[in-house]
Amino acid sequence: MDYEARFEQAVASVRDEGRYRVFANLERIAGRFPHAINHGAGKRDVVVWCSNDYLGQSQNPLVVEAGVKALQVMGAGSGGTRNISGTHRLHGELEAELADLHGKEAALVFTSGYVSNSATLSTLGKILPDALIFTDELNHASMIEGIRFSRCEKRIFRHNDLEHLETLLKYAEPERPKIIAFESVYSMDGDIAPIAAICDLADKYGAMTYLDEVHAVGLYGLRGGGISERDGVAGRLTVIEGTLAKAFGCMGGYIAGSSALVDAIRSHASGFIFTSSQPPATMAAALASVRYLKAHHELRIKHQERAAELKKRLARAGLPVMESETHIVPLLVGCPVKAKQVTDMLMEEHGIYVQPINFPTVPRGTERLRLTPTPFHDDCLMDDFMKAIVDVWRKIGLDREYRQAA
Amino acid sequence: MDYEARFEQAVASVRDEGRYRVFANLERIAGRFPHAINHGAGKRDVVVWCSNDYLGQSQNPLVVEAGVKALQVMGAGSGGTRNISGTHRLHGELEAELADLHGKEAALVFTSGYVSNSATLSTLGKILPDALIFTDELNHASMIEGIRFSRCEKRIFRHNDLEHLETLLKYAEPERPKIIAFESVYSMDGDIAPIAAICDLADKYGAMTYLDEVHAVGLYGLRGGGISERDGVAGRLTVIEGTLAKAFGCMGGYIAGSSALVDAIRSHASGFIFTSSQPPATMAAALASVRYLKAHHELRIKHQERAAELKKRLARAGLPVMESETHIVPLLVGCPVKAKQVTDMLMEEHGIYVQPINFPTVPRGTERLRLTPTPFHDDCLMDDFMKAIVDVWRKIGLDREYRQAA
Ligand SMILES: Cc1ncc(COP(=O)(O)O)c(C=O)c1O
Ligand SMILES: Cc1ncc(COP(=O)(O)O)c(C=O)c1O
Repeated sequence: MDYEARFEQAVASVRDEGRYRVFANLERIAGRFPHAINHGAGKRDVVVWCSNDYLGQSQNPLVVEAGVKALQVMGAGSGGTRNISGTHRLHGELEAELADLHGKEAALVFTSGYVSNSATLSTLGKILPDALIFTDELNHASMIEGIRFSRCEKRIFRHNDLEHLETLLKYAEPERPKIIAFESVYSMDGDIAPIAAICDLADKYGAMTYLDEVHAVGLYGLRGGGISERDGVAGRLTVIEGTLAKAFGCMGGYIAGSSALVDAIRSHASGFIFTSSQPPATMAAALASVRYLKAHHELRIKHQERAAELKKRLARAGLPVMESETHIVPLLVGCPVKAKQVTDMLMEEHGIYVQPINFPTVPRGTERLRLTPTPFHDDCLMDDFMKAIVDVWRKIGLDREYRQAA
Repeated sequence: MDYEARFEQAVASVRDEGRYRVFANLERIAGRFPHAINHGAGKRDVVVWCSNDYLGQSQNPLVVEAGVKALQVMGAGSGGTRNISGTHRLHGELEAELADLHGKEAALVFTSGYVSNSATLSTLGKILPDALIFTDELNHASMIEGIRFSRCEKRIFRHNDLEHLETLLKYAEPERPKIIAFESVYSMDGDIAPIAAICDLADKYGAMTYLDEVHAVGLYGLRGGGISERDGVAGRLTVIEGTLAKAFGCMGGYIAGSSALVDAIRSHASGFIFTSSQPPATMAAALASVRYLKAHHELRIKHQERAAELKKRLARAGLPVMESETHIVPLLVGCPVKAKQVTDMLMEEHGIYVQPINFPTVPRGTERLRLTPTPFHDDCLMDDFMKAIVDVWRKIGLDREYRQAA
């Protein structure tokens, strides 16, 4: 058996589809975000337009200082799993802060948002082995993994389609436990789920709800509790899941819910139990960030203003900006090769870094740039960006008409 | 459907078995390891005897300083997944350092050792869907998860049993791809796999090999390359997996292997692709730690000396120290209730923190204390520990004879 050949073949298949990824080799600079150094292109200064550090919290001096202090006073690693010497005072403090953020009894921190989804959903399947899981067709890979690994039966409902979801619920055995798993902000399109209406259906059919707020926590609601806070429905959700790695600018993931739910996951989730816990510095920085964003709603207002401004400018320039209700600004290209051409040219000729988004992250034919303006993308940077994108669009001869994907 | 009741029931089942976990609420202190503050017991100073910060690297000033500098200069988070703005210069440097550590062409960093096992093994199953996976019965939960999720057929071989493994290999269809997955140091017993002999079998039956060196990297071999370095067999293994969270004192996991293998996993592993990458500070600290341990073999010698000394003292005192070839010193109790009594009394009366190890981490009837002396557990701390454990053992009336599990 020639294993090397099999591995090479696995890479070749990706290459053949034009999906082979070469990572941009960046060096971030605290205090100068969204500027960074690109080591891949002879160490040049670039402006990043595709970061998920949505509010630049990663360089917030209070966040950095909290991390530095914890690192100096408490050391680099936690030294163990949560159960075996790895629970730090800061884990508990952060969990209490997150429970409060979502108005829930308890919260549990995981090594990442990916792991929180995968571990929690798969463990719900262990706790409710007879459950049916209703999952939005556009749910994130980490939820899909958790659902698969739960070994529960699943029903996929059309994206944000309440009628379809209700049909599926209606035909399910009434006595079986049901889990509706969905996201609030879908990160590649920037649309928002009808959370309240989904909760209505959950009530009607006796389902519990699992909401991924990864692209909304820190960003929506008066204290950054996400769309569920904004819509006043946090109390109706069984589980709210979030990340510390995007708006909060650090790393890690979490769930919030009732004490019983959190204790059950804490006690049964392999992906929580059998892994070293997060370092004190990351927990301290995240704690500072969550607290800061609870108290600084003006950053969220500025963030929304910047996104609206960019959408307006793109539309005015006749560029195919896709409809989005959120801070995410997708610009349609519709072809992986051209998307790469656009982003290469933006980088080479204009020092602007945007990563093209290809299949399987988005459906084929909807390849796009996913722009994420932050409060730090000021008018001046926006002028530069608009000049560059219009220039590149013209040079590549991309159709200027809005081509919505089939 | 009363979901709360189901969650409560899931916790009650754990409680009924005496396996309910209450995490010790610690505060580590850089420079004073193995001392820590226990916030659970009225903020008292305790000595930790069960940390996986095996060499105290978490408080190594060079490691801390590297982390602090990166945090200050580059900020708290990475801002994205590896593909979307989240690859930092330091990721590449660390991966090159790890590839060099194991004498492999390439390495790939994951958010944790758990994720590196789960994501790599499950992805190998996607790349080699017709594969048969041969897995040691004592493999870690993260490997079990990866193998399950791979959806490959699996064959479980008796722990470290070459004859059984060969029998299983012999009866497998010769033309099918085969993966032998095992660990070097088994962390609960402290025994070591016969790596060379397993590689011989792999050669004979055309299998590839996957070795978890999580409890050996940094600790064995002249540069800390693990048991595979010590035994001179690193070149024979297809994949070497390790963690940055134990001997290296930080957080994260990795695999090392051929360029083709690493590129295939990089291109296909959902758990690698769809998650925010590690923060610059963690990568910088880990890089400093790996480099330091490559050059400081004397720390490994001291570590082994401490473990040998503790084993000798326990045996001399007539306590049931279990056989172990490594730095891990398991002390058999054989009952979850008594194990908890021992550790409660050690904490309350002597300020010594050891976590009891229960089912399912170890088989029922083999509940134990898992002691991990480090170079920082000096003779004086060892005197204290011995006095305390002898006292507790006597008070609880534990049988002093060596009771090997059935
Ligand atoms: C919707 C969604 N959920 C979960 C995750 C995973 O979160 P994390 O990056 O913290 O692993 C992501 C992205 O990374 C995401 O987009
Ligand atoms: C054998 C083994 N593999 C993998 C892991 C997971 O590594 P990490 O703690 O980095 O997630 C552990 C323990 O945590 C382990 O004991």
